[in-house]
Amino acid sequence: MDYVKELIGIVGEKNVSTDLIERLCYSRDLSVHEAVPDVIVFVKKTEEVSKIMTLANKERIPVTPRGSGTSAVGGALAAKGGILLDLSRMNNILEIDKENGYVVVEPGVICNNLNAALAPTHFFPPDPGSANLASLGGMVSTNASGNRALKYGTTKNYVLGLEVVLADGRIINTGSVLGKTSSGYDLTQLFTNAEGTLGIITKVILKILPMPEYIAFAEARFSSNLDAGKAVREILTSGIALSSCEILDKVTIDVVNKVMELNIPDYVGCLLFIEIDGNRKAVQENIEKINKICQANNGIENRWDDDPARRLKMWAARQGVIASLSRVKRGSRMQSIMDDPGIPITKIPEALVEIQKISEKHHMPINTFGHIGDGNIHPIIICDPRNKEQWNTIKEVAKDLIDLTLRLRGTLTAEHGTGMAKSPYIKSELGETLEVMKEIKKALDPKSILNPGKMGFDDSIKGIYENFAFQPLIERPTEMRGFGEALDNEIMACIMCGFCRAGCPTYKETLVESINALQASTVRPSVLLASWSPIL
Amino acid sequence: MDYVKELIGIVGEKNVSTDLIERLCYSRDLSVHEAVPDVIVFVKKTEEVSKIMTLANKERIPVTPRGSGTSAVGGALAAKGGILLDLSRMNNILEIDKENGYVVVEPGVICNNLNAALAPTHFFPPDPGSANLASLGGMVSTNASGNRALKYGTTKNYVLGLEVVLADGRIINTGSVLGKTSSGYDLTQLFTNAEGTLGIITKVILKILPMPEYIAFAEARFSSNLDAGKAVREILTSGIALSSCEILDKVTIDVVNKVMELNIPDYVGCLLFIEIDGNRKAVQENIEKINKICQANNGIENRWDDDPARRLKMWAARQGVIASLSRVKRGSRMQSIMDDPGIPITKIPEALVEIQKISEKHHMPINTFGHIGDGNIHPIIICDPRNKEQWNTIKEVAKDLIDLTLRLRGTLTAEHGTGMAKSPYIKSELGETLEVMKEIKKALDPKSILNPGKMGFDDSIKGIYENFAFQPLIERPTEMRGFGEALDNEIMACIMCGFCRAGCPTYKETLVESINALQASTVRPSVLLASWSPIL
Repeated sequence: MDYVKELIGIVGEKNVSTDLIERLCYSRDLSVHEAVPDVIVFVKKTEEVSKIMTLANKERIPVTPRGSGTSAVGGALAAKGGILLDLSRMNNILEIDKENGYVVVEPGVICNNLNAALAPTHFFPPDPGSANLASLGGMVSTNASGNRALKYGTTKNYVLGLEVVLADGRIINTGSVLGKTSSGYDLTQLFTNAEGTLGIITKVILKILPMPEYIAFAEARFSSNLDAGKAVREILTSGIALSSCEILDKVTIDVVNKVMELNIPDYVGCLLFIEIDGNRKAVQENIEKINKICQANNGIENRWDDDPARRLKMWAARQGVIASLSRVKRGSRMQSIMDDPGIPITKIPEALVEIQKISEKHHMPINTFGHIGDGNIHPIIICDPRNKEQWNTIKEVAKDLIDLTLRLRGTLTAEHGTGMAKSPYIKSELGETLEVMKEIKKALDPKSILNPGKMGFDDSIKGIYENFAFQPLIERPTEMRGFGEALDNEIMACIMCGFCRAGCPTYKETLVESINALQASTVRPSVLLASWSPIL
Repeated sequence: MDYVKELIGIVGEKNVSTDLIERLCYSRDLSVHEAVPDVIVFVKKTEEVSKIMTLANKERIPVTPRGSGTSAVGGALAAKGGILLDLSRMNNILEIDKENGYVVVEPGVICNNLNAALAPTHFFPPDPGSANLASLGGMVSTNASGNRALKYGTTKNYVLGLEVVLADGRIINTGSVLGKTSSGYDLTQLFTNAEGTLGIITKVILKILPMPEYIAFAEARFSSNLDAGKAVREILTSGIALSSCEILDKVTIDVVNKVMELNIPDYVGCLLFIEIDGNRKAVQENIEKINKICQANNGIENRWDDDPARRLKMWAARQGVIASLSRVKRGSRMQSIMDDPGIPITKIPEALVEIQKISEKHHMPINTFGHIGDGNIHPIIICDPRNKEQWNTIKEVAKDLIDLTLRLRGTLTAEHGTGMAKSPYIKSELGETLEVMKEIKKALDPKSILNPGKMGFDDSIKGIYENFAFQPLIERPTEMRGFGEALDNEIMACIMCGFCRAGCPTYKETLVESINALQASTVRPSVLLASWSPIL
């Protein structure tokens, strides 16, 4: 790779890495895919990004931008190799203007760090489960969502403007600090949710809001998904503006009970975590209405509270679901496949029933939880990655979930984006519109160097198991290096969510993935087990 | 024009018109520009639009789409001749789903007709001054706004999905009935605010909201613009969610007093029309806070009310400003030039003071009124269209307003769009981003047939007075046909807003512009006076 010297000339030697272990650490995420970059480049300034893109455009080098790497769909994996552009160190909050209601941030700023800087008077509403790790650049690129989307919308509703470096190195600014403008095409919204395929985001102007006056929350208990679903439908269509409404089905309750010891009684078949905010008197009036609706739908009990510490605890239980799923059965873990459908609100009760039928049809447990309030539920499958038959079954389950979602006029990806994971089947949702997206992509990135192999734009990912991280593991299990059953199970439990970085002191100091102690103990062996064992 | 026969073959003879008078009626709007189409085509179905675009693409015929023609910027004028595609008869409400919170409409549906269909339980929030005439297709194409934008945002915040016919006749669907999706590029937002230059909108999925529980409104009186501006800034930055906040300065108050006999006392230097809605108790608490803030900023008096009939009356006074401005001085009328800036909220007091200075500098009265709550004020100039020196002065006033707006980090068009009127100077706001917009335009409309000559995409409109409707009037005044001073003054007063159509019984029956009785008496002579007198 001759261009590595030129990269060093742009950013300096310590910001360029071709180390194999480092590159392996960048080769995985929450999805089932893997892809190894040729070189990792750390950037801190827009001008550096511009020079790198100018070089990449000239030499036709693929460039994959990455914030924190917390994608669930292979979004920041270097599907065609080339440069992995790590923007996580470009992380300054440049401007906070509470009066005019906006901030200007670099793409590497972590969501919760922004909220810490805005507290206690203001906040940035989108709150993905990965908020203590997710970068704002990544959140903009995928239109990230979260528990509060029900009332507050998603990231794109807060993007006022962007600075973007285009495929050929030009730097442009879209939008402005103003909320309201009609000048020209909405390029801000075009680059938002473009998953890094149209340009590299180097600055973001985000709208912020004043903190609500009062917040109340409740654990609402039901006997069944159906009762809970009907109650949700009635609450939402009555005009009550909940800020959050999350569902945990029986399978999920059992998991969090077991792993997090929450002591939820056995007769509870379905839980809703509800939150409502605003003027205190208005909230109290709405609580009465919500209670009546839940009772009319066979609700068992609603436990209301407004204590901030207990509120954090309730949401921690919800956030803990993902990790808990990998603790249910030793050696098994959650798989992110067709895990992100969005369903119209009035079709939710039907969707919950149909998902249960799909689970029974294929004899595969499906955990359904998530943002039921806005129709975005997460049907999650748990399997042993070493079991080939289970992977075959998962493929059939995914097909049924795709058919169900499209039949109900839903979307196949409500918040995670398309990336690699949804590429094989996104055309069934988008149809001819996908061709128009390709035309726009071609206009702005004629050499197709920006995050190639994503979004169904080419045939890179034809099937659910292309660029499959577990291929060697299921094809050549006896060749995989083992570390004994107990440790192998631990390694299998690692879902590559990247949350360990938030807790690792070494990573905090070095910002180097391969020195992340936890990652060193789990990811590297996992990666080695899955793909590279014959080599190392 | 050989293609007229083919057009007749697609839509039928009665839906194609090459009549000169009819075409003249389509040649003007609120802007100072004019452009005469070669043929007018009325469509009712998507398939017809698709066939017309296929033909136009093959033969390179310009196509200008039009809803109600209530653009303020020449948006629906056929700048390069060709086909004027009139979608006003494609006006069915296809689906209303209150439970899921959306409607599906054809582009010719009138805004207020939609609201009538949704009342009393739901509403579509964007409320432009032309709401009883504006088409939803036109509102989507320009991201139309209105008094309620302060709380409820603009049209683009409500567009969930579109059916679009592309330049080559392909029909695509973007977005969906869901509010939340991350699947692919946001083409919905790209076609929204594209002013008909990327595709013809043939169907719109719009979000709707439940009606608020309670609405209160007030006329807030101040001695000066500065006091009112400071009060607005404080109210908005305190987090109080006003739904509307409109300003009328002294010049405007005098006008509406004179024309509409509102009897506002002379000591009132500035009026704010304020509205707040939501939970009744919350509203009442906020009213107390607003009153305190106004008092602290030398407010004279706030007159609160919640009677629906009086509410309509207050807003009618605000809506009546535009028409009233043409009644101030016989023979003079408002001109739409640099009339739509958007300013950051905290810069509003400074902007109001600076606009007054510009007025004094050029000895030209400027009426400032508008959506002060979201920073979108309308500085309107009144002049006699027959006076050449006044047009020269207006050009200089416009330059100063442009400089002021950009200096304050504002936008040159907050809600009206670019069209022809802002084309000469939109690059000073957009810079290199305009080039990227052109690249997208080229990708989707390589032959540049969709609404050409707009948005600063070519050099069609180099200066403020290109395609100038009043050119013959000021160059060859003695050649213009006159009808006597009184009638000539009436003709000059016609601002081409098109509102006469909403009241004309003949137009309601025939949907033919040239048979609109009022238009026949004012527009035609006005047009004749301005441009065609030597011919007819």
